[in-house]
Order: sequence, then structure tokens, then C-alpha cells
Amino acid sequence: MQLVKAEIIAIGDELLYGQIMDTNSHWISQELDLIGVKVVHKTTVGDNREDILKAFSDAEKRAHIILITGGLGPTQDDLTKPLMAEYFGCEIIEFPEAVEAVSEFFKRRGREITPLNILQGHLPSCCTYVPNVVGTAPGMWFEKNGTYWMSMPGVPHEMKKLMKDFVLPKLPSLFELPVIFHKVVKTVGIGESWLADLIRDWENALPSHIRLAYLPSLGHVKLRLTAFGTNKAELEKEVDQQIQKVMPLIEKYVYGYDEETLEAAIGKLLKKAGKTLALAESCSGGYVSHLVTTIPGSSNYLQGSVIPYHNQFKEKILGVKAETLENFGAVSEQTVIEMAEGVKNLFSADFGISTSGIAGPDGGTEEKPVGTVWIACAGEGFVEAKKLQLTQDRMLNIQLTAVSVLNLLRICFDQNNK
Amino acid sequence: MQLVKAEIIAIGDELLYGQIMDTNSHWISQELDLIGVKVVHKTTVGDNREDILKAFSDAEKRAHIILITGGLGPTQDDLTKPLMAEYFGCEIIEFPEAVEAVSEFFKRRGREITPLNILQGHLPSCCTYVPNVVGTAPGMWFEKNGTYWMSMPGVPHEMKKLMKDFVLPKLPSLFELPVIFHKVVKTVGIGESWLADLIRDWENALPSHIRLAYLPSLGHVKLRLTAFGTNKAELEKEVDQQIQKVMPLIEKYVYGYDEETLEAAIGKLLKKAGKTLALAESCSGGYVSHLVTTIPGSSNYLQGSVIPYHNQFKEKILGVKAETLENFGAVSEQTVIEMAEGVKNLFSADFGISTSGIAGPDGGTEEKPVGTVWIACAGEGFVEAKKLQLTQDRMLNIQLTAVSVLNLLRICFDQNNK
Repeated sequence: MQLVKAEIIAIGDELLYGQIMDTNSHWISQELDLIGVKVVHKTTVGDNREDILKAFSDAEKRAHIILITGGLGPTQDDLTKPLMAEYFGCEIIEFPEAVEAVSEFFKRRGREITPLNILQGHLPSCCTYVPNVVGTAPGMWFEKNGTYWMSMPGVPHEMKKLMKDFVLPKLPSLFELPVIFHKVVKTVGIGESWLADLIRDWENALPSHIRLAYLPSLGHVKLRLTAFGTNKAELEKEVDQQIQKVMPLIEKYVYGYDEETLEAAIGKLLKKAGKTLALAESCSGGYVSHLVTTIPGSSNYLQGSVIPYHNQFKEKILGVKAETLENFGAVSEQTVIEMAEGVKNLFSADFGISTSGIAGPDGGTEEKPVGTVWIACAGEGFVEAKKLQLTQDRMLNIQLTAVSVLNLLRICFDQNNK
Repeated sequence: MQLVKAEIIAIGDELLYGQIMDTNSHWISQELDLIGVKVVHKTTVGDNREDILKAFSDAEKRAHIILITGGLGPTQDDLTKPLMAEYFGCEIIEFPEAVEAVSEFFKRRGREITPLNILQGHLPSCCTYVPNVVGTAPGMWFEKNGTYWMSMPGVPHEMKKLMKDFVLPKLPSLFELPVIFHKVVKTVGIGESWLADLIRDWENALPSHIRLAYLPSLGHVKLRLTAFGTNKAELEKEVDQQIQKVMPLIEKYVYGYDEETLEAAIGKLLKKAGKTLALAESCSGGYVSHLVTTIPGSSNYLQGSVIPYHNQFKEKILGVKAETLENFGAVSEQTVIEMAEGVKNLFSADFGISTSGIAGPDGGTEEKPVGTVWIACAGEGFVEAKKLQLTQDRMLNIQLTAVSVLNLLRICFDQNNK
């Protein structure tokens, strides 16, 4: 089987000058990787004739598939369309279907179409017109000596729609692509090197057609298994068997698979068990509640939250005892426990979780330096607290606190719902 | 004055396969743009000898400055260092100072140095060693026929440190760079095209050496003024004069300049006036509190928040009247007003703000479809509410609600603190 190679060309001065970050190339890379197409090169060039034409000819030498984003606006400085016509040696002509689509696009929005926009329906005669149903600049597909070219707008959601509806479904009909199956096991609460130590024997015994990648991110490590073969169902079965094999070693760190987030996994647990949650956030300042409420349907299990940023409100609203604050301070095991229990009672919830710490950059002491955080989880008849020693960085401390307290909730839930 | 051109080369398979997003190139572009260096090309290549060498030779033809990130790890698949030695025709030798720095780096962290790490102090003899004080892979600086090359690790904070400490200060001594002054005026609460209409005459009358760019983002539009000339102080004065001229037209939308965020601007207002804030978030689920608490020192003015995700807690904790909820519903002018007043009282704050809406994707009705949001701001002797009709997208609705309610607070503060 031939290795199918792709190149991505992003066009636009705004990308070179840093006015816009190119997120398209990254997304395209991920999608192509999933279907076994290998991206070999990415190029970003400005709105400049020579640079664009050179990028085209260089790409043609390297890749079978060339994906181009940007430079398709209606104004003079957008050069992709005329230069593609020039490169492939054809004229720009009216595509009535494309003009009709642009006109319709404006009509639906109750706006008058301009002559400049009508020209967006004029395309190189040698291209296949690919309708853009979410914008005004059409996609253009070209074929030349066994290379395939797709030009797409730079607006991310327009590009993605064209990729999903047209390019990604088309590629398997043009090339013999490897059969690939991916599965991601998502872990939390263990560092990459510890995880690697834990599963080394299993990893070393993986068959050569199944590869493992560690993908660490803030507080999480994803294990991605990629299997190559000829039969997808067979690969899926093999990967699942490997996961079953490693699971006893890592079970307590695993919260989900593939795209599932920790907050979604927790939501699923709570919803399934018919249990409810309340949060008392001090140092995390609302971030944990925000994560929980990004999940559609979170109102099924989230009762509410209190962010008592000052001690007096920890007392007044959550019922933390004055002497607890006095004797141990706001950042202490005793305080977070009373916060978790207090918020659980206030909202009549099954679980209460709490955070209190010194996010920084100021407020640290010798005994409790910046990055000292206490978290707790209270449930029916139990409460558990944990101390974290985090970083000097405020935002990082907020994010790591959130991951840790959600993980504490996951563990407490597991231990108390068996 | 000669135009100084730069090229960025990012090296690493993980960038091509979409495992890591290249944020470095974007950051470097922004920094070079600020000092008048023009990025003409960006290239991403994998860990492959031929591709990397071709990227080097292509870049040398196009640019005066070539900035390379990645491919500097201690393992075999990291090729940047040997290929730079090959490209510049010199040997890799021990740099005692660099070996010492790597050893120190490990010692400070109480870790044993490995033979592989010692080799990170071995560098091409033709490079200038640039210490990396936050990591183990050194920076390397090369000069060849009037082109300047810098190789840096791909880890963003290591690359940034080397750029800030070494590259950016060095460039003005190597090239005659244009004198540039940038200032960004940050607006909220007005769309790009309305803003453009409002300031068209002023924009058309700008002198040719001052350029204006509109940079829209979620709920905000930034106006960036860029002045080119020979004297920085002079340019700064001219830009400030232009801003003074346009200000009467846009004053009520302007919350800050340059890097200042809306939440930071509000924090400054509150802190300066010695006023405090409390939040009642329903549909925004903690996101507004999160934004407010990302600002260091926000404990000076934020008293606390309540997220009463269910109606009973709007009553119980915030004192919203049962008949208000009964008669008008949770998503109503009356309810958000009582929430804002209730939370202001609960936390003895000077200002209370509130949100209540249907974030989606479910929960909409014909009368109150998904995206219907009410926000309010209560202060001493006044209260103001506003209805928003947002989108179908939950995350977008949460973010737009946050911007809108912070802007409402800004406006109320302005009107009641004159």
C-alpha cells in the first residue's frame, strides 16, 4: 500500500503578521491522521503572487493531496482563485450554480448582494465547484497528474464543513488508505512517567501493528492506541482486548474514552445514579462550576454553587465555624471540610465539593506559600480532603485545582456508590 | 530603509500529525510585527533529514532572519542540531559552559543527570551558545552571509524566554528597523460594521503613515493603530492625538487599551473607587466569576458569588420572591432584578450583577427560545436590566452573556460614579 501524503498551504498576510492564529492547519492534520493520510509539510504564505505560486509547485512535488485555506475573499488582495486559474492554465468563468448559491446566501439573510459578491460565483473553468453552504466563497477541487487540490475559505467553520462534507468522504475513493482504528483512554491524577512505569510491560508486549502514544495535558494524560490493518471491526476488537488487559493496572485513573471530558464523565455518573452536586469554590473562583455547566443537561444534577471569596461569607452562607477559620485559617483541611459539608446542606445535595487555596501571585506565607490548595468532597456519611501543592501561576493553579477537585469527586463517588 | 524579512521553521512530526498545535509561530509573528520585521513565510516540517535541509536552504533564499523551533530533544529522532551542524559545515563539540548549565538544571531539581542529557551541552562549533535558563536544550545562534539563524526548543515558555532575552533585543543592533508605534483601543458592545460606520470620516482622514485595523473577537472589537516613522516619542504623541480625536464618538464603548481585558478594566474601576461586587449567575454557570477571579488581587473587590442553578435556591439564598418566579419565570426581567439586588444584599456589596437564560441546547420554548438571556446590574439606589437574544450554541451563549453582563456593570458603574 502506497503512503498517501498531504500538504497544507495557508494563505494570508494576517497569518504571517500574527493578527490571526492559524487553527485550520492543526484541525486538518488531526482529521487526516485519523484516516491514515500523512501530512508531510505545512506552509504559510502571504498575499503575494510569487510566494503562492512557488508554494503550489513545491507542494506538487511533495504530496498527493494539497489542501489550501484562505485568500478567497471578494477583494483585490485575495489571490488564491486567480493564481489557481493561472497555475492550472484555465480561465475564470461564471459558474451559474455558484452565482445562484451566493445570491441565495444573501437573500436568506435579507441583504442586498453586491457586484463584488456576484464575482465569488466566477471560478476557474478547470475546477469542480464545491458548494459552501455556510459562507460565500465556494470550495474548488482540482485534479492534475494524479494530485488532488482543494481550495477552501480560511474561516474555520466554513473550511471544516467543506472538509467533512466533501474532502474527507472523497479521499477513500481516490486512494487505497490504510484501515486505522483509534481509541483514546483518558486518565487523570497520575503523571506521564508514573503511568509509563505502571504499564511498561503491557506496552512492550503490544503487537507491532498497535501503537501507543502518551498525550499529556493539564492534569490529564491521554493514552492513544492506534491499530493498523485491513479490517476495522477486527482492529476495534483487538484494541478493546488490549484495553481490557491493561485496565486492572490503571482503572482508578481512567475516567473516559475518546472525546469525553472529566466534567462530562462526572455528569454521566451523577445522572445515572440520580445524585446531585453542590460546589463551594474559593480559590477556583467559579471555574469548576463553569466546567460543570458547560455540559448540556447539567441542570439535572447541579444544584448550585457558592463562591464565598471572603471568610465572613464562608461563615454566613456555608456555616463554616468562626473558630475553625480562626484556629486553622481559610486554607486548611478543617475549613474545606466544613465548606463541602456546608454547601451540600445548603443546596440539599448528595455531594458537596470545595476548594480553598492561595492562587497567587500574592497572598503566600512561609507556612502556606502560593500554590497551597485544600480541596474536599463530602457525601452521605463521609468526607475526604486533600492538600495540593501547585505552582506560582494563578491561572494554572485555578485549572489544576479544578481538575483535582473533580477527580476527588469521581473517586469519592466510586468508593461510595459500589 | 531595507525591509527586514523573517521566516519561521517549526520542526516535529507531532506538529504535522496534529498531536500538538503550533502556537509558537503565531507568537513569534506577533513579536516580530511589533518591531517592524516582516515574516514572509512559515514552514512546518517533520523529523526528516531531507525536508529539514530543504527548509533551511529555501528559507535562506527568502529571509534575513530564520527562526527555528523544535527538534532539540535529547533523543535520536530530534534532528535539528546535527542538521544545523551539517548545513553550516561544522562539527558538534562539547561546550563546557552548556554542559555545566544542563547539569546545574538537573541538580537544582534534585535529579540525576543522564548521559543523554549531558549531550545536550554538545553543540555545533560554529554556533553561539545561548543559555536556556528554563529548560535543558540550549539556544543556538548562527550567522552566514548576512543571514541570522536562531534555533530554539519547541516548548513555548522556553522559546519565549530565549526570544525575549536574546533575539528580540539583538535584532535592532543587526538591522536598521523601522520605528513603529502600536496602540490598541478596546471596545465592547458594538459590532465591527457599526463601529466602522461611526468612525468612517475620522478613519479616512488618518495620515498615510498611521494605519487602522479592526480586530473583532467575541463581543469585542479592537481598533489597532499602527504608526510608522523615525521617532517613537513623536509617533506615540501623534497616535494619542488621533485617539483623542475619535474618542468623543466611541467613548462609551471603550474600556481599555492594549492588553487590558474587560474584567481587568472593571477590577481597576472598582478598586480605585473602593467599591465591591457580588454575582448571581444562573445561565452563565460561574463563568463570569471565573473571569473576574482570573485577575490577581480580585479579592480586593469581589465579595462572592452564588450560582442558584435551580429556582428554589434563587428564592432561598437570594430572596427572589416565589410569586416573581411563578408569574414571570426564571428567565425574566423581574427575576434577574431580584437576583441582582438579592446577591448585592447577601454579600453586602456595592454592586450586584445577575444572569438568567436558556443556554441550550435544550430548554427553549416558543416564547423564550434557546439563547434568550436576561442580565441585570443593581447598585446603590438603581437597578438596570437588559434582554439578550443570543445563539443556539451553549458555550457561545455563556461567553456572550459574560461579556454583556460585565459591560452592563461597566456602564452602570460609569453612570453612577460621576
